[in-house]
Amino acid sequence: MKKVEVLSVGTELLMGMVANTNAQYISKRLPEIGYGVYYHSVVGDNPQRLKESLALALSRSDVVIMTGGLGPTQDDLTKETVAEAFGLELVPDEESIENIKNYFKNKGAAMVESNFKQGYFPRGSVIMKNGMGTAPGCIIEQKGKTVFMLPGPPKELIPMFDDSVMPYLREREDMFMKSIFLRSVGVGESMVEKIIMPLVDGQTNPTIATYVKDGVVTIRITASGKTDEEAACLAENYANEAKKLLGESIFTDKEEEMWETVFKMLDDKGLTMAAAESCTGGLVASKITSVPGASRVFKECAVTYTNEAKIAELRVSKKTLERCGAVSRETAIEMVRGIFERSGADVCVSVTGLAGPDGGEGKPAGLVYIAAKYREREEVGEYNFRGDRERVRTLATLNAYDMIRKIISK
Amino acid sequence: MKKVEVLSVGTELLMGMVANTNAQYISKRLPEIGYGVYYHSVVGDNPQRLKESLALALSRSDVVIMTGGLGPTQDDLTKETVAEAFGLELVPDEESIENIKNYFKNKGAAMVESNFKQGYFPRGSVIMKNGMGTAPGCIIEQKGKTVFMLPGPPKELIPMFDDSVMPYLREREDMFMKSIFLRSVGVGESMVEKIIMPLVDGQTNPTIATYVKDGVVTIRITASGKTDEEAACLAENYANEAKKLLGESIFTDKEEEMWETVFKMLDDKGLTMAAAESCTGGLVASKITSVPGASRVFKECAVTYTNEAKIAELRVSKKTLERCGAVSRETAIEMVRGIFERSGADVCVSVTGLAGPDGGEGKPAGLVYIAAKYREREEVGEYNFRGDRERVRTLATLNAYDMIRKIISK
Repeated sequence: MKKVEVLSVGTELLMGMVANTNAQYISKRLPEIGYGVYYHSVVGDNPQRLKESLALALSRSDVVIMTGGLGPTQDDLTKETVAEAFGLELVPDEESIENIKNYFKNKGAAMVESNFKQGYFPRGSVIMKNGMGTAPGCIIEQKGKTVFMLPGPPKELIPMFDDSVMPYLREREDMFMKSIFLRSVGVGESMVEKIIMPLVDGQTNPTIATYVKDGVVTIRITASGKTDEEAACLAENYANEAKKLLGESIFTDKEEEMWETVFKMLDDKGLTMAAAESCTGGLVASKITSVPGASRVFKECAVTYTNEAKIAELRVSKKTLERCGAVSRETAIEMVRGIFERSGADVCVSVTGLAGPDGGEGKPAGLVYIAAKYREREEVGEYNFRGDRERVRTLATLNAYDMIRKIISK
Repeated sequence: MKKVEVLSVGTELLMGMVANTNAQYISKRLPEIGYGVYYHSVVGDNPQRLKESLALALSRSDVVIMTGGLGPTQDDLTKETVAEAFGLELVPDEESIENIKNYFKNKGAAMVESNFKQGYFPRGSVIMKNGMGTAPGCIIEQKGKTVFMLPGPPKELIPMFDDSVMPYLREREDMFMKSIFLRSVGVGESMVEKIIMPLVDGQTNPTIATYVKDGVVTIRITASGKTDEEAACLAENYANEAKKLLGESIFTDKEEEMWETVFKMLDDKGLTMAAAESCTGGLVASKITSVPGASRVFKECAVTYTNEAKIAELRVSKKTLERCGAVSRETAIEMVRGIFERSGADVCVSVTGLAGPDGGEGKPAGLVYIAAKYREREEVGEYNFRGDRERVRTLATLNAYDMIRKIISK
């Protein structure tokens, strides 16, 4: 396997102003096409240290992906340093210079001489267009090494990486690779591994890796083949086997959040939704409304933090609150019925619980009740989440969407 | 200035499963005590590559802060590699071994032999307790170099860094350092710099740095002195000058979010709040309810995404919606009056706007109206935010809290 190093240039990283999410993104994507990242390095805008770091990267890695240092200022030295390392001169690229001129013309902004610096590249570079900014990227192949130079801002780097770097590396491999991502909820990571790992037992094609974040386990299945079709077929066969084994805990085979999946399901079926929240305090509503087009499916939400609000807005009975408490199965059901009546939405969900750090009503922090109502159908679940306030709220929100997903699928 | 390198060990970083937030956190905090981070490196759980990376770090840096690789498995090699680099043997620390035993006893969990590995350290280590897990950290001073070994999980690393690494480094400096953080909203980063930089013009003590994130500009003022008092006095004088120049745009001198500041203000004054949201879709409510104790001040929120909900829940008049549109000054005011009446809260805020990506009602994406009502007092503001859907919603939420802060301060 070819060794890749991500070499990031930028004082903002060494000052802790941002986390190195570029290195993370690149590291997550490369295994999809059979490349492994062996090192990340970060160095500031200092000519000597940058030169030494590049020399080191070239000595120990086959592919070096540099991020940052392509700006118009004197501090931006990535292309200059690479050119020097290989004894190349920087030459202008007419098309890039034209694009830079047009960019400023269209923005109606004044242009300074230094902006032209972004149109110069080490001689022999393959140039990568930047649809999101003025700094094109470039690729140099020299002495058996490949160096990619990408802009630092993630909004520029990500599309350039996806549209230029990935296809470039893929084309140069003899093998074709295909990756499929499955995302599951409700089954722990170690249990997911226990269930699916026997599928690949002792084999190296496909490879399977699992990641867990905020209660969602993502399974990456990467297959290689002599043709695109062979790789795709192999990956899909394994994905289908994994889907069978994991059943309805798999909510998507795309890299999307649970609420994006639910949004699409609602939108496809022409259904509307509403919510009633206590401990999640607006988090459930905030997730689906983060999706563009949310107004097609989302009607409203009542965040009823106090008992008075639960009674006034959702017609939860005072008796229920006194007898069973605000954090109870009964209250969750009355909340979801209340928002269902009030909103006229096709499907509703309610959440009530103790986010912590303290418990209440003689109940422990982490205890959450979630109820859903889809037309005549009603469901309610009891959960005991572990973790701090943020984690309890996050897991409650995830499971609220999971309940919507399941109730409208039945 | 002493050169610091952060050397992170862990395959999960090279697989892109997590971003290197440990390196970010360390890099952000060290300048507060006069240390500068020159390099970040990440290497996997591979003995040879780890050995080479450590040798490199020791050759070019005075202080090496290692994160990760302190676990109980054979893959965890940080202490072993450091011991080898300095020709030291690993020796047991009785107290640490006792703590590990007790940890398992209290959890009622079974213990395996390999857990004891976490109680062994390079001979001569200063041991740092881990209140959040089983892996203590340690410090080695050898050949003019200082190496810190910290656990990888951020929940364990952060308290150990704050409680042990920072004081250790601070004590060894001749100078005392004091950092103050001011956070401001409503003034751009370059304008903040233009206003405050003349305060330190040509001086190196204190130093000032600015960071911007999600619409909040943070100003770090770091002063050094021969005594604690001297440093504190210098930093405070400059902070007071900056506060005067930036006026009410400064919302806190702590490292806290705007909604935490507002929560404390409300709590101190014994006030309650409620909200009515359209384009932010629950984000405003979700922020204050993320703060422990929120139920003391937060009553409820109506997320009214549709016009029908605005009419039914907030008594916004149909006429206003037809004449002015849902995204208008008039609708914002009627929304805040509606939630004020309904909730009985002391202070209310409403948000209506176009989060994008598309505009509507012949109005552009990013147009947002925010209204606040505190007893008899009412305010309403028009905003034109730039950026994608997520950013418009984030900035609208921030400014909603800013309006609450200002209306209850008057």
